[in-house]
Amino acid sequence: MENKIEPCMTIIFGATGDLMNRKLLPAFYKLEFENLLHKSSKIIAFARKEKSNEQFRKEVLKSTKKFSKLKINDKVWKRLANKIFYHQSEFQDVKGFNRLKTLIKKICTKSAACNRVFYLSAPPSFFETIIANLKKNDLTASSGWSRIVFEKPFGHDLRSAKKLNESIKKAFKEKQIYRIDHYVGKELVQNLLVLRFANSIFEPVWNKKYIDHVQITVAEELGIGTRGNYYDKFGALKDMVQNHMLQLVALTAMEPPVRLDAYDLREEKVKVLRSIEQFTLKDVKNRTVRSQYGAGEINGKRVNAYRNEEKIDKKSNTETFVALKLNINNWRWEGIPFYLRTGKRLKERVAEINIVFKQNHSVLFDEYVKHTEPNMLIVRIQPEEGISLQFSAKVPGKKMIVDNVRMDFCHECRFGPNSLDAYERLLYDITIGDQTLFTSWDMVEHSWKIVDKITKAWRHGKVSNYNPDSWGPKEADKLIEKDGRRWYKPQKPSYSELLQNDSKQ
Amino acid sequence: MENKIEPCMTIIFGATGDLMNRKLLPAFYKLEFENLLHKSSKIIAFARKEKSNEQFRKEVLKSTKKFSKLKINDKVWKRLANKIFYHQSEFQDVKGFNRLKTLIKKICTKSAACNRVFYLSAPPSFFETIIANLKKNDLTASSGWSRIVFEKPFGHDLRSAKKLNESIKKAFKEKQIYRIDHYVGKELVQNLLVLRFANSIFEPVWNKKYIDHVQITVAEELGIGTRGNYYDKFGALKDMVQNHMLQLVALTAMEPPVRLDAYDLREEKVKVLRSIEQFTLKDVKNRTVRSQYGAGEINGKRVNAYRNEEKIDKKSNTETFVALKLNINNWRWEGIPFYLRTGKRLKERVAEINIVFKQNHSVLFDEYVKHTEPNMLIVRIQPEEGISLQFSAKVPGKKMIVDNVRMDFCHECRFGPNSLDAYERLLYDITIGDQTLFTSWDMVEHSWKIVDKITKAWRHGKVSNYNPDSWGPKEADKLIEKDGRRWYKPQKPSYSELLQNDSKQ
Repeated sequence: MENKIEPCMTIIFGATGDLMNRKLLPAFYKLEFENLLHKSSKIIAFARKEKSNEQFRKEVLKSTKKFSKLKINDKVWKRLANKIFYHQSEFQDVKGFNRLKTLIKKICTKSAACNRVFYLSAPPSFFETIIANLKKNDLTASSGWSRIVFEKPFGHDLRSAKKLNESIKKAFKEKQIYRIDHYVGKELVQNLLVLRFANSIFEPVWNKKYIDHVQITVAEELGIGTRGNYYDKFGALKDMVQNHMLQLVALTAMEPPVRLDAYDLREEKVKVLRSIEQFTLKDVKNRTVRSQYGAGEINGKRVNAYRNEEKIDKKSNTETFVALKLNINNWRWEGIPFYLRTGKRLKERVAEINIVFKQNHSVLFDEYVKHTEPNMLIVRIQPEEGISLQFSAKVPGKKMIVDNVRMDFCHECRFGPNSLDAYERLLYDITIGDQTLFTSWDMVEHSWKIVDKITKAWRHGKVSNYNPDSWGPKEADKLIEKDGRRWYKPQKPSYSELLQNDSKQ
Repeated sequence: MENKIEPCMTIIFGATGDLMNRKLLPAFYKLEFENLLHKSSKIIAFARKEKSNEQFRKEVLKSTKKFSKLKINDKVWKRLANKIFYHQSEFQDVKGFNRLKTLIKKICTKSAACNRVFYLSAPPSFFETIIANLKKNDLTASSGWSRIVFEKPFGHDLRSAKKLNESIKKAFKEKQIYRIDHYVGKELVQNLLVLRFANSIFEPVWNKKYIDHVQITVAEELGIGTRGNYYDKFGALKDMVQNHMLQLVALTAMEPPVRLDAYDLREEKVKVLRSIEQFTLKDVKNRTVRSQYGAGEINGKRVNAYRNEEKIDKKSNTETFVALKLNINNWRWEGIPFYLRTGKRLKERVAEINIVFKQNHSVLFDEYVKHTEPNMLIVRIQPEEGISLQFSAKVPGKKMIVDNVRMDFCHECRFGPNSLDAYERLLYDITIGDQTLFTSWDMVEHSWKIVDKITKAWRHGKVSNYNPDSWGPKEADKLIEKDGRRWYKPQKPSYSELLQNDSKQ
């Protein structure tokens, strides 16, 4: 199943933005460094301001140096820089697209690299305009293949997503469409599949008989920064749950696919989303919590309340925290809740999945148990990538005392610190035409169906407030505590100190 | 189930030997340090040479300083030294026992500590004599309780063990008899029970459906040293398998006991031994390997062949290595072999149990797998105590490559380096009257039944030779390889480097 690296032209719309500088350029550089960009491949940066190729190349060298984990090697950079072209145009300027066509033709004739990737790193409000202009100028037809790449958000509800998809479908087929969810590109997220299906000891206990519940935490320390314009329209539910977190749910809960390919994997993931119990009005009240960060202090430094952040409506009712309880009504998961929580300005930056097993209350050890935490499998997606298993062991000594301990698998200790950035992987997959890690339309559709029910119910009422540097509002604790459970505090794995010592050397 | 510490008198027969100096004295010191010896308790050292109490106390201070992990504190030592009395006598000297009686009475009147522990740290050939002399002098009757402690070997076959037991039973009841197997006192061996029965994730896969086989390795780097006299009569099978290794088999394979007490635990262990398929002559040929170390080099230093060791018959046919395949014919283990190997002068000192799970060959990952090791749970008894789980994970990178990785639980990282020595635990248990960790007569009986079948078949034929600094003879590899399996090389856990760095600080 090895796909060949073919030459292609990647046209990036919005090529002077944050994503280009922080993620795409370092990823392109790494691919060039590893000889994974075809020598005839090109990158066309499409943006508004007037600039020469040379000027642009100079600018991006600077930002690549800043954001790349690798030290920039002159020779490699030169190879990459020669592939980069700058094209000035507004997104709505038909003539600009016409000039793009000329440029493409010119490059294409030169190198025979007529395959095209249209990468939409532009604000979502321009998506339809850009596609219409591509279509109008006949840019989507090529002697090679064409693919189109979307960053989130794909719509802001089911209706808008459908509308957007309809526009795209006028110019592209589903198998040409790459909807990015960079969470799925993360190493430990991909490891979920391997963990579950390449091992014989986990799958036998991976069901309602042995699992008590699953909890997924994606916590950020930072506030919304300069993204106010976008964020205030979306909020945590649409920004994190609709895409990243439902992907994590799907990967954790899915049935084994027939094959490890795009079709089968995405089919199985959709089946999970389709099995998630839809929220009624009453469910939303009982099984969702939304909240917004207030003002406070972090490390002795005053931080603004969300409503006082840049570009935010002073009366904004947008949530920066959300907690949910999902029920998955299928054979494997019936009665086993998935608790999700995500938010900004929380205690620490961490993303992890906790598979919490049923506790084995037995006459044998109950009298000796010191703490009563259940067995847990913890997949830590960031910051310290790894997998841990919490279990019970005897405390050394003359008496029988049983306590919780952890086995830890340290990803970095084993494989070194050069873990792949998600974008490097995703850009590569687009080039070789592997849609496995990208979101299918079916997934978009079914995740909006779930989310829409919640946002509709949320239209009335108001968000609560929570303190910065906390784990969210009290209501989030209550959400899980009323089921006789609790959120487990993410724990640094035992090797994290070791890694810190290493990196100091 | 907390037992009270009562005063008692421990009479140690053979009190100038290695066990006393290396193990018992450091253990007594630690117990004194932790205030776990009753202030009225006494230790009577029974040995051949003429010595005063003061002289003996001086000598043992020296050896305790040498062998104790703790730094000897003067005050604590003084408290302990005042409890120690020296009694000169030969084991066969009836009068000496009569003088012992007088001494005991004297001390007993003084302190009302009339409970007695008779600790036989003497050569096995004296066991019956000592018991007879105790009986003759009416030393076993006391106003308090009496207990008797045996070190291995308990007999050298079923017949001699039975004979010894009959002699003991004339003076002591089974519940007064403490047969030591110091392996069972090791922390990680005790952890086996907790691992299995205090956790909910292991027991569901702990059976023939999910486990492929179990392998137990107890390897020593050292040769037989000065123990030639004893060793040449016994060999690896009787010295290691009959007691320690069958205990490990029993703890790994046993059914959950009704309660965690001496009766239930020992009953369940006996059931395992009774389920072990008896060896026929043909089985011994097919399922056992015996070998003896030849001469060779370790770290550039010449080492003797076993037959040239001190006190060894130049034509000795005694095995210093044994490998076995055991079948346990019960519901849980039918068809799942237990492979055992133990030997001296092997590559490294290590004791571990590997629970090897069936491999999940699946269309999903087979084409991506780099190495094909199965899932394994590894209980490492020594030197670095810990529990590890080997599983498959994705190697970071753009391609799907699956490799073996390990989660490690580092006992010392979590609980500190002051793990209990087995003897400290066992001496304490004898004092409080807890027989749980001691070998019942039934276990002795059934383990000799297994071993006798093998030694009988071994009477004919000769041991092979193996090289020092190896993992034993080729035949041991063949034993497991003909079943399509292989011995897994013990691996240092990932934290072992960390521990070394720590201890250097």
